[in-house]
Amino acid sequence: MTDTTPSTPGQLELAHLHSSLADPALESMNFLNEVAGRYPDALSLAAGRPYEEFFDIEEVHRYLRRFESHLTDELGLSPAQARRAFYQYGRTKGIIHDLVARNLAVDEGIEADPEALVVTVGCQEAMFLVLRALRTDDRDVVLAVAPTYVGLTGAARLADLPVRTVRSGPDGLDLDDLAVTVRQARAEGLRPRACYLLADHSNPSGLSLDLATRHALLELAEREDLLLLEDNPYGLFSAGADRPPTLKALDTRRRVVYLGSYAKTGLPGARVGFVLADQLVSGPSGAVSLFADELAKIKSMLTVNTPPIAQAVIAGKLLEHDGSLLKANEREIALYRDNLARLLAGLAEAFPAGSGVHWNTPSGGFFLVVTVPFRADDELLELSARDYGVLWTPMHHFHDAPEAAHQLRLSVSLLTPEQVDEGVRRLARLVDDRLR
Amino acid sequence: MTDTTPSTPGQLELAHLHSSLADPALESMNFLNEVAGRYPDALSLAAGRPYEEFFDIEEVHRYLRRFESHLTDELGLSPAQARRAFYQYGRTKGIIHDLVARNLAVDEGIEADPEALVVTVGCQEAMFLVLRALRTDDRDVVLAVAPTYVGLTGAARLADLPVRTVRSGPDGLDLDDLAVTVRQARAEGLRPRACYLLADHSNPSGLSLDLATRHALLELAEREDLLLLEDNPYGLFSAGADRPPTLKALDTRRRVVYLGSYAKTGLPGARVGFVLADQLVSGPSGAVSLFADELAKIKSMLTVNTPPIAQAVIAGKLLEHDGSLLKANEREIALYRDNLARLLAGLAEAFPAGSGVHWNTPSGGFFLVVTVPFRADDELLELSARDYGVLWTPMHHFHDAPEAAHQLRLSVSLLTPEQVDEGVRRLARLVDDRLR
Repeated sequence: MTDTTPSTPGQLELAHLHSSLADPALESMNFLNEVAGRYPDALSLAAGRPYEEFFDIEEVHRYLRRFESHLTDELGLSPAQARRAFYQYGRTKGIIHDLVARNLAVDEGIEADPEALVVTVGCQEAMFLVLRALRTDDRDVVLAVAPTYVGLTGAARLADLPVRTVRSGPDGLDLDDLAVTVRQARAEGLRPRACYLLADHSNPSGLSLDLATRHALLELAEREDLLLLEDNPYGLFSAGADRPPTLKALDTRRRVVYLGSYAKTGLPGARVGFVLADQLVSGPSGAVSLFADELAKIKSMLTVNTPPIAQAVIAGKLLEHDGSLLKANEREIALYRDNLARLLAGLAEAFPAGSGVHWNTPSGGFFLVVTVPFRADDELLELSARDYGVLWTPMHHFHDAPEAAHQLRLSVSLLTPEQVDEGVRRLARLVDDRLR
Repeated sequence: MTDTTPSTPGQLELAHLHSSLADPALESMNFLNEVAGRYPDALSLAAGRPYEEFFDIEEVHRYLRRFESHLTDELGLSPAQARRAFYQYGRTKGIIHDLVARNLAVDEGIEADPEALVVTVGCQEAMFLVLRALRTDDRDVVLAVAPTYVGLTGAARLADLPVRTVRSGPDGLDLDDLAVTVRQARAEGLRPRACYLLADHSNPSGLSLDLATRHALLELAEREDLLLLEDNPYGLFSAGADRPPTLKALDTRRRVVYLGSYAKTGLPGARVGFVLADQLVSGPSGAVSLFADELAKIKSMLTVNTPPIAQAVIAGKLLEHDGSLLKANEREIALYRDNLARLLAGLAEAFPAGSGVHWNTPSGGFFLVVTVPFRADDELLELSARDYGVLWTPMHHFHDAPEAAHQLRLSVSLLTPEQVDEGVRRLARLVDDRLR
């Protein structure tokens, strides 16, 4: 909104702009940011941004120098070639693909062909590239496990691709509902092209799939000829010792397009993500290409390159930690684990059995969902921020199922451990007052 | 293309991917890159990349430190706030909008409201944001002065927005043809939403509009209720002393959306561009927003933020030169001017009057167009690269008019002055052999 006198006519009309601009999801995000902005002193159990206390600008310089020495000392580039790598337009698919492939091997046990990787401007661009590629006409739809990350919903709107939701159920994915949804869409003459999900510590539900469900999902994808779009920004932040393999690590039939993010594990300000797309694409006259090469063509029309300078920063961090972000994030992993344990302990203390308040118990990540016996809507959030000094996210922003009206997403990523304790106490006061 | 055994079936079919992937423009770019890659020793009068001999990685570190001190010493941010500016997700419209606005005031005499700016991942993202916003349904079309920059063609394909071309004529824009094209489209029930052009040193034609044409174009835009999309990556590279004002500097009625690029004047590897969109958008219930805010909503679904680290590099360069890229690029401007003069002198020497070879004489920038009395097609380019050691760009890649078949685009941006001289000599040998 800009300050304009009533006599100034608008030159454009919203009704004559792309339909994504009228999407309620945009208003949701605006509202949530606006509330957070109006109550800067409220503790945020809402924000999903990574922890800030470890930030250090000198690291950026060190990472850039590490990548430079990698180019010259390890790869044998001349100084002029190294300068060009930093300064000039680069390869459309990215200049750090070998390092990303090594990272996937080290941390995830995924054997990725570096040529099947496209380095993107955050995972958001990767989602848009994939959805845009899969959209040929009005018959195409994408499926998404609900509640759904708003970034997927936004990218799909922008690609004119309708989203059909699949129930997550208590375990992260209702496989029967997925099969029914696929068949129903086909019966309507539609083409369900892919199903989007987070298998690990999902945003916003906090849920993870167990190993049996992962295998069953891959079988269903094969049977129903469906791609799976696996988004995995939180997989490293496991609270327990063991991490189940990603869908991509289990994928023997190129059914999984893997969407990677370095926003939480690398450096958010670099905005580097990637997509691993090793599917084969048949063209006319029998030519076969990698899906990654088709995505790169779309990228060439969208952003041309992911900034080489930003890629260099991430490359330096990967190099400094022998390709392992699990190693690079030891402090962060411990912090998030501690915060999640404190949040769970605080909830258990505040809401004993019979209180009517319950929540899920994620095995890691940033998020969990609390269910309360009253409406947890935008109005209550406003009251919570103003009178109780605590922010959270009403689940109806991610999900239009009836239960969402009574659910809150809580996040533990931005607060110090002490702030988590205090945040739960404030939330408990709000809930107690509503239950009275 | 990947190496696959014939028995491996493709899992996806190109025919079931987005139509932009079947666009001949993509094959063009692939072909041109591929020829350049096969003949690395050929002198490139084809590449439009900026000159590389001045690149210096230490500058990147210096620019980052300059922006950091700007945040803390000049804007009074705390060290923690400065760290967050570098590290964390930032404002969707960008974090260097004040500096970009100052740059526009200093170098272009454009008084920009910083809130009307969106900092983008190169100018390419800016083009896509605008075209996507302007596309509501099949009736929308965009006009573009032909021959047209391939990036615009690509972004339009990706936004499902057909392009109707307008003749440039000998002076850069045929205003009568523009008026006829607008009316013709309307008569067909279409909505021509905007006309895209480079007013200064256009890619690929090299042409610039004179001042009278600029004024007449703005009047036509007002009369026909048309937006102008002014793309200006080369405006600073004027060979003469005077630069005419940009369309945006002359725009008193918010008719011009200004597409800015720092790829040639800042640092290509930062991939930072911007769009100045001060148009007013009327929503339902009388709300009025800036077009920039609508573009930012699309950006939030596409790339979320332009990498703050990359913005910081450009910010540091702007700060180091008091907001002036004209000042920052003194060496580059002199180099391109010298190269263009050498190219023109070399052509005049090689092809005297009556030779049947002619060319235009741009007032600056990277490009000019040579017309020859034989077909200058991809086959000839291949021969030129292999047997004569010189690369250029067949104009048919930018334009399907009949004359394009006999035209070559030459660029002077990547070569040293001595290489320009040698490049013209090699081109002259090719042309002489064809004329024999």
